[in-house]
Amino acid sequence: MSDDTMTARDLRHRAAALDAADPLAPLRELFVLDEGVYLDGNSLGALPAHVPARVADVVARQWGELRIRSWEESGWWTAPERIGDRIAPLLGAAPGQVVVADSTSVNVFKALVAAVRLRPDEDRTDIVVDATTFPADGYVAQSAARLTGRRIVRVEPARLPSALGPATAAVLVNHVDFRSGRLHDLPGLTAAAHAAGAVAVWDLCHSAGALPVGLDAHGVDLAVGCTYKYLNGGPGSPAFLYVAERHQGAFDSPLPGWNSHADPFAMDPGYAPAEGALRGRVGTPDILSLLALEASLDVWNGVCMDSVRAKSLALTDFFLECLEEYVDGGVNHPDSRVSSLTPGPHAARGSQIALRCAEAPAVMERLIERGVVGDVRRPDVLRFGFAPLYTGFADTRAAAVAIAEVLAEVPRA
Amino acid sequence: MSDDTMTARDLRHRAAALDAADPLAPLRELFVLDEGVYLDGNSLGALPAHVPARVADVVARQWGELRIRSWEESGWWTAPERIGDRIAPLLGAAPGQVVVADSTSVNVFKALVAAVRLRPDEDRTDIVVDATTFPADGYVAQSAARLTGRRIVRVEPARLPSALGPATAAVLVNHVDFRSGRLHDLPGLTAAAHAAGAVAVWDLCHSAGALPVGLDAHGVDLAVGCTYKYLNGGPGSPAFLYVAERHQGAFDSPLPGWNSHADPFAMDPGYAPAEGALRGRVGTPDILSLLALEASLDVWNGVCMDSVRAKSLALTDFFLECLEEYVDGGVNHPDSRVSSLTPGPHAARGSQIALRCAEAPAVMERLIERGVVGDVRRPDVLRFGFAPLYTGFADTRAAAVAIAEVLAEVPRA
Repeated sequence: MSDDTMTARDLRHRAAALDAADPLAPLRELFVLDEGVYLDGNSLGALPAHVPARVADVVARQWGELRIRSWEESGWWTAPERIGDRIAPLLGAAPGQVVVADSTSVNVFKALVAAVRLRPDEDRTDIVVDATTFPADGYVAQSAARLTGRRIVRVEPARLPSALGPATAAVLVNHVDFRSGRLHDLPGLTAAAHAAGAVAVWDLCHSAGALPVGLDAHGVDLAVGCTYKYLNGGPGSPAFLYVAERHQGAFDSPLPGWNSHADPFAMDPGYAPAEGALRGRVGTPDILSLLALEASLDVWNGVCMDSVRAKSLALTDFFLECLEEYVDGGVNHPDSRVSSLTPGPHAARGSQIALRCAEAPAVMERLIERGVVGDVRRPDVLRFGFAPLYTGFADTRAAAVAIAEVLAEVPRA
Repeated sequence: MSDDTMTARDLRHRAAALDAADPLAPLRELFVLDEGVYLDGNSLGALPAHVPARVADVVARQWGELRIRSWEESGWWTAPERIGDRIAPLLGAAPGQVVVADSTSVNVFKALVAAVRLRPDEDRTDIVVDATTFPADGYVAQSAARLTGRRIVRVEPARLPSALGPATAAVLVNHVDFRSGRLHDLPGLTAAAHAAGAVAVWDLCHSAGALPVGLDAHGVDLAVGCTYKYLNGGPGSPAFLYVAERHQGAFDSPLPGWNSHADPFAMDPGYAPAEGALRGRVGTPDILSLLALEASLDVWNGVCMDSVRAKSLALTDFFLECLEEYVDGGVNHPDSRVSSLTPGPHAARGSQIALRCAEAPAVMERLIERGVVGDVRRPDVLRFGFAPLYTGFADTRAAAVAIAEVLAEVPRA
């Protein structure tokens, strides 16, 4: 774990060279960061430096001075679909298919109930859920099944293609596993769902802003995701909902609100849904959180998602290489203190590295004291997220060095 | 409509005297206002002057510097129930029964599905809805009925007591009618619901922060409401959900999220609901909007809701008196250009005055040009909301004068 061996010096030089050659490196200056290494952007993205002034304007001028007039004059009313259209290209979606509203869980509920209604045949009894799903998606799916008279079938992602069939109404999969960082095969599983006649619903929380998704290209039906991780929208910023254009006319939301009415200010006692993605809206949008997100999205101007993906993979490769060098006993060997839960093959890797470590809580506590911030998923997983817009190779090496040092301090459990 | 008759001078003097004697008058200084008269606080409350600095701190320090640590260190995680406890006394609720989360519509959905589940007897086929309800509540109620196998019965509020019976599972009533400003009899209708064995669900959007509600005293079962009107939480600030303590153990939400799990970070595939009001939470809370609301609530420190109600009634009485004096032809006479939809008796009046006026859109446009801001509900209703914390009697008189002047300019339709 010495930082002064030949290999260690080589890694230091390589980190510097990789940073120097990184076309995304200048974007780091757009964010508020400190001397530490922030590897928790897969939980809460860092603050873009221009956002505070934009939020201040929303509060002091738009709310404080214009007040009610801002619903028109400041574009508040149309913010959910306008911001959806800002996010759409990052997901590989044409305009008019993404709306920003509510939380991810609420959007999972809309999507799954609507998915079942797209497949009303009563023989389609099953909502199939990725068995490794973020738990909340499973809770909501269970509720959607209960309310629509369907049942939940939990299937390991690897077994999904063979598990889908004529009884499947819809399938809900997490694009990237929140715990392991495994990337699932969105094109293949979507095609498998369609081959079975089912509706494919994707949760993009851990892929939106981290890698190309290709919603339109791969024929995804419905998708949801959060905006506070790799999209840097701020704590609890509202989630998005994608409804493929071909489904919009039949999208039958279980949460019909006045914001999704065709003529909201008619105050009609009868519900008549609006056209397009805004059919996914419900109630009055939370403007402060929404417009902070809108401001944050400026950092994506001109950024190509293929470059983001290339850097993400280079970062996680380099992180694993550094860990192998610095950590006493390396990674993934029989006696290693840490082993990677994240798949090695690029095609199966998201933008985080998850390390199994028996002493995970104590290790993370000491890492955070040193300014290296990741998080723990109980009982024994250390998670490190790599946000390509603001994480560099020197950061990555420094984090690996810190992990090696902390492991040397923390006794084996 | 002259402002220089004996009566007009008298009204001017009375306005000044009423303002001088108003115990709430000093609160006006807490808000950002201009020289105009803002009578749209029943749509979007004015900005409390201390809020911008608090929001700036949330953005720049809590998000920008502490980042993920703020979920604990800045109290983000517990904000929904903490802020709920700040709102609870304004609604006459003991602590532990109010949570702030999601939009009003989403909370109506939670409340109505949960209400039906509190009355699972299949003979209770009906969800009864106030026929004059804010339309979105009706849309959501229809969805809740569809998903729980119930039907919607729309009943005029005056006929509610006789319409409730052994087939009623739940009844949803708006405490104050959004259009007319009529205040419904919450104690009486709640008692009638209970006599019928039904669950009483109240929408408090137009009463929270405007008048005493007495949720606990009157035995209300479930209630929802928004926080951006009389509670001044900011545009689209999250809504609240009240679940009476006696129902919390059986409160079975259709939107079970990880934030309402008994142990969210166990990441348990099975849902086990938390105890108490936080069972009404769903996904990750929208922190910027939530904490702006929390800051805004400081203006209520030490304010007694009985004083608010007394001032509200005095303001609306005075407004009607001024209109009668200044408007050519007065109010509510056979040939008057404006007639009040809002009931005269105090027991049936909320904190707004709704005037029917054939030329409502043109009149409001000119009023806004003069700095007198209300709004229109199509086709012919002028709405003026009186927020007792920052609206004074001189404001009220000035608005009436402006209305009289504008009516003199706008030809009869």
